[in-house]
Amino acid sequence: MTAVSDEGMWLLNDLPRQQLKDKHKFELTDAWVKNAMLGSVRLNSGGSGGFVSADGLFVTNHHVAADSLQKLSTPGKDYIRDGFYAETRDKELKCPDQEINVLQEITDVTKDVNAAVKPEMSAAEAFAARRAVMGKIEQESLTKTGLRSDVVTLYNGGLYHLYKYKKYTDVRLVFAPERQIASFGGDVDNFEYPRMNLDVAFFRAYESGVPAKTPNFFKWSETGPAAGDLVFVTGHPGTTQRLETLARLKHRRDYTLPYTLYRLRTLEAALKQYSEQSGENARQAATDLHSVANARKAFSGQLQGLLDPKIMEQKQKAERGLVESAAAYKHRAMMIPGPVDPKWLSAFDDALDAIAKIEAVQHRLRGFEKEYGLLETGHAFFTPLFGIARHCVRMNDELPKKSADRLREYRDSNLESLKYQLFSPAPMYPELERAKLATSLTFMAENLGGEHPLVKIVLAGKNPAARAEELIAGTKLFDPAERKKLIGEPGASATGERPIDLSKDPMILLAKAVDAESRKLRTRYENEVEEPERQGYAALSGVRFLTFGNTVAPDATFTLRLAFGTAQGYEVSGEKLNFHTTFGEAFEKSAKLDGKEPFDLPKRWLDSKEKLDLKTPFNFVSTADTIGGNSGSPVLNRTGELVGINFDRNRHGLVRNFVYTDVQARHIAVHSKSVLEALRKLYPAAPLVKELTGK
Amino acid sequence: MTAVSDEGMWLLNDLPRQQLKDKHKFELTDAWVKNAMLGSVRLNSGGSGGFVSADGLFVTNHHVAADSLQKLSTPGKDYIRDGFYAETRDKELKCPDQEINVLQEITDVTKDVNAAVKPEMSAAEAFAARRAVMGKIEQESLTKTGLRSDVVTLYNGGLYHLYKYKKYTDVRLVFAPERQIASFGGDVDNFEYPRMNLDVAFFRAYESGVPAKTPNFFKWSETGPAAGDLVFVTGHPGTTQRLETLARLKHRRDYTLPYTLYRLRTLEAALKQYSEQSGENARQAATDLHSVANARKAFSGQLQGLLDPKIMEQKQKAERGLVESAAAYKHRAMMIPGPVDPKWLSAFDDALDAIAKIEAVQHRLRGFEKEYGLLETGHAFFTPLFGIARHCVRMNDELPKKSADRLREYRDSNLESLKYQLFSPAPMYPELERAKLATSLTFMAENLGGEHPLVKIVLAGKNPAARAEELIAGTKLFDPAERKKLIGEPGASATGERPIDLSKDPMILLAKAVDAESRKLRTRYENEVEEPERQGYAALSGVRFLTFGNTVAPDATFTLRLAFGTAQGYEVSGEKLNFHTTFGEAFEKSAKLDGKEPFDLPKRWLDSKEKLDLKTPFNFVSTADTIGGNSGSPVLNRTGELVGINFDRNRHGLVRNFVYTDVQARHIAVHSKSVLEALRKLYPAAPLVKELTGK
Repeated sequence: MTAVSDEGMWLLNDLPRQQLKDKHKFELTDAWVKNAMLGSVRLNSGGSGGFVSADGLFVTNHHVAADSLQKLSTPGKDYIRDGFYAETRDKELKCPDQEINVLQEITDVTKDVNAAVKPEMSAAEAFAARRAVMGKIEQESLTKTGLRSDVVTLYNGGLYHLYKYKKYTDVRLVFAPERQIASFGGDVDNFEYPRMNLDVAFFRAYESGVPAKTPNFFKWSETGPAAGDLVFVTGHPGTTQRLETLARLKHRRDYTLPYTLYRLRTLEAALKQYSEQSGENARQAATDLHSVANARKAFSGQLQGLLDPKIMEQKQKAERGLVESAAAYKHRAMMIPGPVDPKWLSAFDDALDAIAKIEAVQHRLRGFEKEYGLLETGHAFFTPLFGIARHCVRMNDELPKKSADRLREYRDSNLESLKYQLFSPAPMYPELERAKLATSLTFMAENLGGEHPLVKIVLAGKNPAARAEELIAGTKLFDPAERKKLIGEPGASATGERPIDLSKDPMILLAKAVDAESRKLRTRYENEVEEPERQGYAALSGVRFLTFGNTVAPDATFTLRLAFGTAQGYEVSGEKLNFHTTFGEAFEKSAKLDGKEPFDLPKRWLDSKEKLDLKTPFNFVSTADTIGGNSGSPVLNRTGELVGINFDRNRHGLVRNFVYTDVQARHIAVHSKSVLEALRKLYPAAPLVKELTGK
Repeated sequence: MTAVSDEGMWLLNDLPRQQLKDKHKFELTDAWVKNAMLGSVRLNSGGSGGFVSADGLFVTNHHVAADSLQKLSTPGKDYIRDGFYAETRDKELKCPDQEINVLQEITDVTKDVNAAVKPEMSAAEAFAARRAVMGKIEQESLTKTGLRSDVVTLYNGGLYHLYKYKKYTDVRLVFAPERQIASFGGDVDNFEYPRMNLDVAFFRAYESGVPAKTPNFFKWSETGPAAGDLVFVTGHPGTTQRLETLARLKHRRDYTLPYTLYRLRTLEAALKQYSEQSGENARQAATDLHSVANARKAFSGQLQGLLDPKIMEQKQKAERGLVESAAAYKHRAMMIPGPVDPKWLSAFDDALDAIAKIEAVQHRLRGFEKEYGLLETGHAFFTPLFGIARHCVRMNDELPKKSADRLREYRDSNLESLKYQLFSPAPMYPELERAKLATSLTFMAENLGGEHPLVKIVLAGKNPAARAEELIAGTKLFDPAERKKLIGEPGASATGERPIDLSKDPMILLAKAVDAESRKLRTRYENEVEEPERQGYAALSGVRFLTFGNTVAPDATFTLRLAFGTAQGYEVSGEKLNFHTTFGEAFEKSAKLDGKEPFDLPKRWLDSKEKLDLKTPFNFVSTADTIGGNSGSPVLNRTGELVGINFDRNRHGLVRNFVYTDVQARHIAVHSKSVLEALRKLYPAAPLVKELTGK
């Protein structure tokens, strides 16, 4: 099955060249791949993009840009709702904390990482040794190349690759359309098709105050894809769970996903209530609400998938197939006279042991997953202010240690990016943070109960609403200068004691109060879950490599991948859906629903409707394999031109976390032609069009 | 404390006359009480009302009327949104399934009920004996008087009273305003004050096709209450938990409420998503969405209350106080020479035993509360179609038994009301029911896990979404004639087998498939929870009567109660809130929020603003003790005139389920004057005004 379908989010250094040749008659050249790699952008706020000019201009989705649009907005100036355009470069707006990464090189370091872990080590020792060696590899690479260097865990522990990125932190907003057209249909049409969304935004990367030179970029296609065309998606899929064992998936179905949905619906309800109070409230909560609602819809689709007996049967079959094939290797090894590959002999027992090991992990995880999520992941504290407080507290404890011994996020090679986020001047709104924190504190109490010692520590003798009020009213962490002071950055007062020890800030005191318990949960998670799972999956990967070679791509890890497929429509309940929609369909749908939110169109579009060619293809779908994180990914044609900007999957694609199907599942992209047509006819954006097309 | 505050939802046959005299210098006469009783209306859809003319006209809230308004509406005709007025009686609209009850008489039957239960009986035997004797008392009363007869359990089992009601099932809609003004501020301002809501609606009760004669009614006050006035609320508070033990409250805090909020937020999210798809969808889902959102807000307030250490301390103190007082009685009894009241001697041990017994119940309940709620209460099946299917299945099994042996809802004295509901021709919408059922089936799977045998039975090899689609597409129970056929009503085909046995309706088959398990859970709940709790609370009530006499009112039971308090404002964060708002404030608030939903005003109000006296008092608050179910309750003055229509509490009043406070907690009512002003100036409703005022 895998061989003939278009499944796969492929590593850039291990692409299915033969498959592309056999099935699609396409010869992947090194130059094509190099341009795809150097032209692809990862936005660290979560999402993908691609350079579209030699002057650092890149395109992504409006909904990926929303994080920056929100942070650039102020009461009375709402860039998410109203859009933005900088006619000249001096008017481009610098984002307060946007960092983008461009992958330069991949090196396989599996041997180095595995060499550091000895079989006789306990889980805790193995985890620490692995963390140390990964930190060392990263640090050496950073020192040597000056590039952001991350060791990436692939196949849940089967391989380790070192990714080196060029990093840009001066990112400026160039263009965004109005939200009404960027996400026409809003939450209602999220993960649906047919779609009519101009979900694009343009930024420019700067270096040393001038536009970055980006010779590797994607030429904007004036025509876009035709039906049946082979297309490629180059971007950063976030996470998939296709190689997880059945026990892990059942744990997700019965524990993790219900808890997650409970949490998301709780947050969504609170954010909606906050938003409904006034237009200004709605503006403040816009990105939080969108990301929560989007996640809720995605996880709901995942849960339906895991509750589908057919999908679970398919997963069970795949797992049994792997064991069966391992048994066959062992059998053959024992039949063959003379020396054989020891992997053939051990494969069967390795597979069974690994599956059992991973199953045992799930039983342990049940006992503390909620506490871990609430406290260490921070679900109990749904405000960036708590995260900031925790970083302030922990950096004081961690930075004096050797880099390799620190919690991984404080390793030297990550510190610059971390501080860039930590000292962000992006605005926060006390009333919004109070509402969010009250909600998440209540959620913690709902999950753990009022007598739980952690709940008592966190609530400190108040009910959640009153406690949130006290924390938000009292904290000074809204001010980046205060954060700098607390981690003892230059310029902070230097008495005998550290500023963090003297702080009476209630958020800092809260972060301190829970830190010991929170670290304990983290250690438990690392040693009882992460490490044994990593070992189990590493063993399973060995068996899988033996059986399938490199024909199975690793699960997504928010690192650069290349997917491919064909632009084609599909059928739902007997109705054939074309592979693309048109501008005209947006106007028709809006009219049919009385132009009511979320099906209202921008005034600009209504006023200038007759200027537009209503037959212009607007959005299109293909079978290429994508997942969340791929938002904003360039969609390329055979010649490497940009023919679309991926922005969503349809609801049939929501099970792609677990299984790839191409019967109805599609990713959805903005058609390259529609962007040009809109920019030319509706927006005063001639310089932008010229930069994209040369015309 | 109880003695001096205005706490209490008092039984009409046991009113605090002395307290009213001492504190408020008010002499409660029998005539006053009789008029209050016979003038008060209970709407069986959930809510209260009061007669306001001798011709069966009664007033309630718009949000109580919403159930009927929804059922009278059709695509294109939306009475909830647009309101309604019948200028002449022949235009009044008959509600498809509204039943109202008017209390005629109360009799104490505690002795009869208790006599049927012998100390040596097991919990199961005791439960059955009690159910049988209650059914017998009700049936005898019904036969003798022709009145609806319900034995009401008071003090959670301390007393049993027989309530006899006159019943009306021909109820017709007279007037409702637009939703924009009925619930101005929507969910945002629900449970908030200041409020500006015209939350009223008028119906008329009919008998034999003509307006009912209702000589006991409340005269409509032209002036309404002044600051500091003593006011009474006569209505049907639903449930309170003030007399519950600490262990029970902790169980609510840590188990029942989190589960309930998880459920409500899940349903609310689904209903919102459904509503956002189109105006017609929003119309279909309006009452479901309102009731879910309203409950979510109320339960959220309860949870904050139970998570407030001060409130829990107060409850603990009260419980300890009761035990302490019981100990003192025992001590005194042992000191007094000669014969003493045996209750004095046993009080202390009774109290401790009862508290321990109720605590033990909570431990048992944890083990099956979710299954019970999902299956027997029906949380897994959030569609009336399942309830209908279950009634069809169970009536076939239950009706052949003796009335006393049946599940309580099928007792003879209840059958007429039950069938009235069951055969309701009110419209249902397949797409809405499908969305609701898919959501609740998913919720069941989230709570029990995919491997749970009940989940497997219910989902029958599909995922929840697909299963809901199959059930709704296949069922014929949308049609009342089909329901009649299935319970073998006259007119149904009569072969050898019962129609229910031959039915292939998938909803019927589902109801059958889970019935054995569901009944098992119910029996378990009755024997392991209800009966021991009832016995425990009966014992505690005995101790409480001994200590406090009748100065503590029983918890609310959706039966008629009288509360009283004074009309007075309160302070929030230093700001003084007046005891009433004005029409002018509604216009101001709407303007301030750009007239955006839910702060938009009806066109009629905007167009005719200058006709209105903007100083007219609109809503007012008092300290009287109310809870959900009191919606639509008449608020009366000393002379028994109607000065307001209760419609809400403020958020400080949400803890009133557990404790009464009057510092900030208030109920909120529509001022009688505002109704007249609006009817006179804005609505073409002169005949209605004349009927209310004689002018």
